[in-house]
Amino acid sequence: MTGYDIEPWSLRWSGLSVAELRRTESTFALANGHIGMRGTLDEGEPRGLPGTYLNGFYEEHSLPYGEGGYGYPEAGQTIVNVTDGKVIRLLVEDEPLDMRYGRAHEHERELDFRTGTLRRRTVWESPTGRRITVSSERLVSFTQRAVAAIHYVVEPEEDLQLVVQSDLLANEPIEHRAGDPRVAAALDAPLIAEFAWAEGTRAVLAHHTRHSGLRMAAAMDHELVLGDGVRTGIHAEGDLARFTVAVDVPAGSSLRLTKYLGYGWSAQRSVPALRAQVEAALAGARQTGWEGLLAEQKAFLDDFWEVADIEVTGDDELQQALRFALFHILQAGARGETRAIPGKGLTGPGYDGHAFWDTEMFVLPVLTYTVPDAARDALRWRHSTLDKALERAQVLGQKGSAFPWRSINGAECSAYWPAGTAAFHVSGDVAHAVAQYIAATGDTEFDRECGTELLVQTARLWMSLGHNDPHDGFRIDGVTGPDEYTAVVDNNIYTNLIAQKNLRSAAAACERNPDRAKDLAVSPDEVTAWQEAAERMRIPYDKLLGVHEQAEGFTAHAEWDFDGTKPDEYPLLLTKPYFDLYRKQVIKQADLVLAMHVRGDVFSAEEKAANFAYYEARTVRDSSLSAGTQSVLAAEVGELRLAYDYLAEAAFTDLHDLHNNVHNGLHMASLAGAWIGVVAGFGGMRDHSGLTFAPRLAPGLDRMAFRMSFQGTRLAVSITRNEATYRIVSGDALHTAHHGEPIVVEPGNPVTLPIPDPPTPPEIRQPANRVPRRRVPPGS
Amino acid sequence: MTGYDIEPWSLRWSGLSVAELRRTESTFALANGHIGMRGTLDEGEPRGLPGTYLNGFYEEHSLPYGEGGYGYPEAGQTIVNVTDGKVIRLLVEDEPLDMRYGRAHEHERELDFRTGTLRRRTVWESPTGRRITVSSERLVSFTQRAVAAIHYVVEPEEDLQLVVQSDLLANEPIEHRAGDPRVAAALDAPLIAEFAWAEGTRAVLAHHTRHSGLRMAAAMDHELVLGDGVRTGIHAEGDLARFTVAVDVPAGSSLRLTKYLGYGWSAQRSVPALRAQVEAALAGARQTGWEGLLAEQKAFLDDFWEVADIEVTGDDELQQALRFALFHILQAGARGETRAIPGKGLTGPGYDGHAFWDTEMFVLPVLTYTVPDAARDALRWRHSTLDKALERAQVLGQKGSAFPWRSINGAECSAYWPAGTAAFHVSGDVAHAVAQYIAATGDTEFDRECGTELLVQTARLWMSLGHNDPHDGFRIDGVTGPDEYTAVVDNNIYTNLIAQKNLRSAAAACERNPDRAKDLAVSPDEVTAWQEAAERMRIPYDKLLGVHEQAEGFTAHAEWDFDGTKPDEYPLLLTKPYFDLYRKQVIKQADLVLAMHVRGDVFSAEEKAANFAYYEARTVRDSSLSAGTQSVLAAEVGELRLAYDYLAEAAFTDLHDLHNNVHNGLHMASLAGAWIGVVAGFGGMRDHSGLTFAPRLAPGLDRMAFRMSFQGTRLAVSITRNEATYRIVSGDALHTAHHGEPIVVEPGNPVTLPIPDPPTPPEIRQPANRVPRRRVPPGS
Repeated sequence: MTGYDIEPWSLRWSGLSVAELRRTESTFALANGHIGMRGTLDEGEPRGLPGTYLNGFYEEHSLPYGEGGYGYPEAGQTIVNVTDGKVIRLLVEDEPLDMRYGRAHEHERELDFRTGTLRRRTVWESPTGRRITVSSERLVSFTQRAVAAIHYVVEPEEDLQLVVQSDLLANEPIEHRAGDPRVAAALDAPLIAEFAWAEGTRAVLAHHTRHSGLRMAAAMDHELVLGDGVRTGIHAEGDLARFTVAVDVPAGSSLRLTKYLGYGWSAQRSVPALRAQVEAALAGARQTGWEGLLAEQKAFLDDFWEVADIEVTGDDELQQALRFALFHILQAGARGETRAIPGKGLTGPGYDGHAFWDTEMFVLPVLTYTVPDAARDALRWRHSTLDKALERAQVLGQKGSAFPWRSINGAECSAYWPAGTAAFHVSGDVAHAVAQYIAATGDTEFDRECGTELLVQTARLWMSLGHNDPHDGFRIDGVTGPDEYTAVVDNNIYTNLIAQKNLRSAAAACERNPDRAKDLAVSPDEVTAWQEAAERMRIPYDKLLGVHEQAEGFTAHAEWDFDGTKPDEYPLLLTKPYFDLYRKQVIKQADLVLAMHVRGDVFSAEEKAANFAYYEARTVRDSSLSAGTQSVLAAEVGELRLAYDYLAEAAFTDLHDLHNNVHNGLHMASLAGAWIGVVAGFGGMRDHSGLTFAPRLAPGLDRMAFRMSFQGTRLAVSITRNEATYRIVSGDALHTAHHGEPIVVEPGNPVTLPIPDPPTPPEIRQPANRVPRRRVPPGS
Repeated sequence: MTGYDIEPWSLRWSGLSVAELRRTESTFALANGHIGMRGTLDEGEPRGLPGTYLNGFYEEHSLPYGEGGYGYPEAGQTIVNVTDGKVIRLLVEDEPLDMRYGRAHEHERELDFRTGTLRRRTVWESPTGRRITVSSERLVSFTQRAVAAIHYVVEPEEDLQLVVQSDLLANEPIEHRAGDPRVAAALDAPLIAEFAWAEGTRAVLAHHTRHSGLRMAAAMDHELVLGDGVRTGIHAEGDLARFTVAVDVPAGSSLRLTKYLGYGWSAQRSVPALRAQVEAALAGARQTGWEGLLAEQKAFLDDFWEVADIEVTGDDELQQALRFALFHILQAGARGETRAIPGKGLTGPGYDGHAFWDTEMFVLPVLTYTVPDAARDALRWRHSTLDKALERAQVLGQKGSAFPWRSINGAECSAYWPAGTAAFHVSGDVAHAVAQYIAATGDTEFDRECGTELLVQTARLWMSLGHNDPHDGFRIDGVTGPDEYTAVVDNNIYTNLIAQKNLRSAAAACERNPDRAKDLAVSPDEVTAWQEAAERMRIPYDKLLGVHEQAEGFTAHAEWDFDGTKPDEYPLLLTKPYFDLYRKQVIKQADLVLAMHVRGDVFSAEEKAANFAYYEARTVRDSSLSAGTQSVLAAEVGELRLAYDYLAEAAFTDLHDLHNNVHNGLHMASLAGAWIGVVAGFGGMRDHSGLTFAPRLAPGLDRMAFRMSFQGTRLAVSITRNEATYRIVSGDALHTAHHGEPIVVEPGNPVTLPIPDPPTPPEIRQPANRVPRRRVPPGS
């Protein structure tokens, strides 16, 4: 029992469950890529982990080293819990509404994927027996990115005096949760008060951070609908602004308050400029009004679901989870606008609020094929940090650009270089996402302004990282691939193949944009060198075992003693030393298997089957990045039941809290992995050179369907047991392929084709205790 | 000009040179393995870096990690500058003797290798024109290990009032020198006062450390020889005890003070017990008296030089450096008695006072063949830490014992596991030293009490670290060899060969001591497994290039751009990131080359020549551990001129301050490397199975001679251009070999044999700017 009601278009939780609050605050978080608000109760308490975030707003702190080394990053960055504008406190005849006291006759909260709002309804009886109904609805606007709003209604069952306090509150105290390296290092009172102002129904607070030198402002305004005898007051000081309403509300009547919030931050702008910015946001929001904001939000989401919806018939809980995933990916990426998409989106402080390579390899494919403008903006963020990536490469003695393993502002923040700096594939991942975006959209403007430069500078990195060797071709030594249980190896296949694609993409971009190539001082010789390096790229293969080596020598390493590893010893990184994990055949997450997905064009079907079977037996999935990709390859080699299990694992990572850390925020890459499991897994979607499909239905389901956008055309694909139907939703005809057969789908003319039998899968087993849970839909 | 006069039996520095004090305090340090005193001036100032050390007395501090991991050591250890008893201040008519003021007409200091004392003579004129001669002589007793003493004489040239203050001083303020990872993290006022007492001429101070919970006591007593009218006083409080002498000394007369010092420390004993211990030491010292201490010291050193002296004719400076080296190695190891021999001995705070594997592989060979009891005691220290090594292996998921990369008390203190924990060869080095010691001494008592257990537990480590693989035999993956510019590699040849020897030594030990084997639960199957693993040990070889690979894949890595590396970019660890150093063919220090010395029995002469030439071209010698070993292999392959250059580099590391860090203490391993360069290099001494020699004279020299001890026999070997003479100094006949020919040397019957021509060396070059300085003796 997960606590959530199963509904196709919403996530609902009934009852209070104080212990679960820190989890539901993540799943009920609202965000638009710019502002993020955890799903805390209006009244602020009880609470799990409070959090309001502004994308890119962080505090800096020094990184400690027991033994330092040249080129180690010196400064870390941590996302800041900014001024909280969600707080609306209620006093009922002097008794504060606190759900831990009195009695809740009814209480439910619901995140609505179509309205884009979080609703709450509580029927509460105070310890002294006064009964009221509180209803609230909250949104973070997709259309007005600096704006959030709350509609708050109190209905007493008898004549009651009510007092409402609506706050802006900075520097909320947060309990520190140390000991788990995955938990963000919390910061105490990071905001220094600079300005506080209040008048009428409006207030503004401005603060700056101590070390990173960033400045933010938050503003609130209110609309009140009620009868006579109301007294209001407003006050602002340092870390608090408070609007107070006191009124006698007769039974059958109600107090209705709309609270508008405006947020802004800047590294450069002054307090007056920021104040003007947030007041302008508020003015716009009041002009639109609550109903207007609701309508805009709905329209935005209608458009999103038209291009992105996934339908599953036969597993209602999975249906819900997939829409939950898409909704949160949209929230993370929609309005980031040249800011990063953090690993947790803006749903919690996990990973210090850093963005990783997962954005490019998991989240951006979803956005590229559904909301391509959001993918473009995320890549523009990478482009905006190119100066830092060029500088980082130089410090490391390399040419081109080296993008960071983890960062908020683009500077490397990883204090452990074997798993950070050495994971150079992140630069290839950026290039992969760029090439994928350009191919999927034909966005020539982005190609010219950002894409070509990103491809060229990342290609240059590979040319300096790698070398042509008389032994065995173009080698890339001493780097770390995606699998975090292996580090600093030679010729990691994933890295080499992503580099190969990067080099070729750069050459193609220079051919498309010769003037940009000239600006970047790319010579014909340089392009030739890229092509030759790509051609000679080393791909280690173990002839004795008949499988590829994840990296040079991997298959000759000792096997991990899976049978001797107890279930509670997972995740292994918390109970085993890295040195022993690194030197054995134990894999945290898809690595070679990820390469067989994104560079599936260089492996034969036989190789994929042999490799998948070999690496499945050694992969423990201690990372949430893995299951989605394993689903894709399981489907490709014909293990559809296993693909379904992995799809479910990816999809339920957060709703079932599989890693016991959803309180720190949602796993965006895993949510994206669920989309990938459906579209690339069961849909068989690939984009190696043009868009192709190889759909197959998951066992036990009656139908799966998904939608996507490609070069401006919106396509719907529907899969049943024996056939698949391709239909143009809007836009031009689409050239694609169905199980290897080229097809053309014309608008108004759906194409239905039979699905061939799947290949016979190899014999597949997982390590002891690491078999994925067999997916059985509840009630089936 | 190094500042030192060239003398065969002493090191003398004339003049003050304030800027050089921090260096000469290291070279003039006195120690006996238990107490160490840097060569600070009697009056305490001017000074470089003050330091008084007690072997094993450290403070603990937490090790910080930006990103932690399972099994990371949590506590660091740093050697403590303990209560300073050297201080004797002088006031001449109220004017403090401070060499920075007034005028020094004469000033010289001399470390005497035969008397084992540091002498100082200063003729000083105070700013007001008063002229005195101060002479002092200082010793740290080899025979009474808790005792040091100073004989201090002041002779005025006119009638003068003199005041002498003789101190015990705790918590001297030390300037912090941050920024260089090689500099020890300094600790502020680490000693907490517990007890202070003074009476007559005697005083005692006791302190304990804040975190490590160690307790120490220092005591002083005085003998005063002078005329009438003397007033003395004594006083003790907290961090200071002071004995004051005020007296009018007529011209031509003198003030003579002998100061006796007693030191003790314990983790367990109480203040009264420690006080009793240091007072007993003082009583013994006073009973012996100054002249008695001098005589004991001289006798101890006479015996040492009889067994250990090296003679060089034709390079007087090298002659001095070699005796300097031997003297300091003796000081580091003589009376350690189950404490570690730190990397800097007790001459400075460098490396935090930690001991490393260099002790076993460089320092212990010297001691094993000269002062074997000291080698035994150092190995008994390792044995005393076996509990910690067993526990460490367990934390790391391994069997047997894993000795620490760096430690004072036996617990791992390295905060960077790729260059610490992963350097498992340290356990094989301990085993190597054990086997070497037993073979060289036939010490069956040690073998039974410690040796067999050390060999068995280290052998067990290899069996769990390595595995039999169908690809290529017994592999040891994911470990770090000696070369610190390469880390976490598969099948490092040095490690594999040291493990191979360890496994075989353990099997032999069990055969020698079946009852001990039984105690340790060694089964016949276990011994068979050791022997099979040793037999199948993987030794990577590059057929394309015809050389061994330092580790799997090494020779396929990119070459370092030596031509593009500027001279001031060395040492590379301070200007280049580890990630780039690790992945390229750049070597910090002898690794495979060290293997070709200590496991020279498994390489053919042709392989040695090819390997040496290959690795010479890629070795930058950023470590002081390298030159001595390179000298050995250069001599073996016939490059005698290069061997001489490397011998000189090792021998002058500290006297010429080649690494610009001698102020932190002397490089014990490099000093030992000089001995190794003479004895194993030019002497061709090997002990693979029995003792053998292959002597050859260095070009330009007229004669080299060395002495050593083997199974109780003391042997002298003399080398001239064309012949070598073997002579028994004391003890029984010795079976050995001369250039491959077995010989027997009988007492009283020296054997003189011709020296064959050296082999034709391969073509050898070093990286740009890393050619060793061509050794040309001064004045030649």
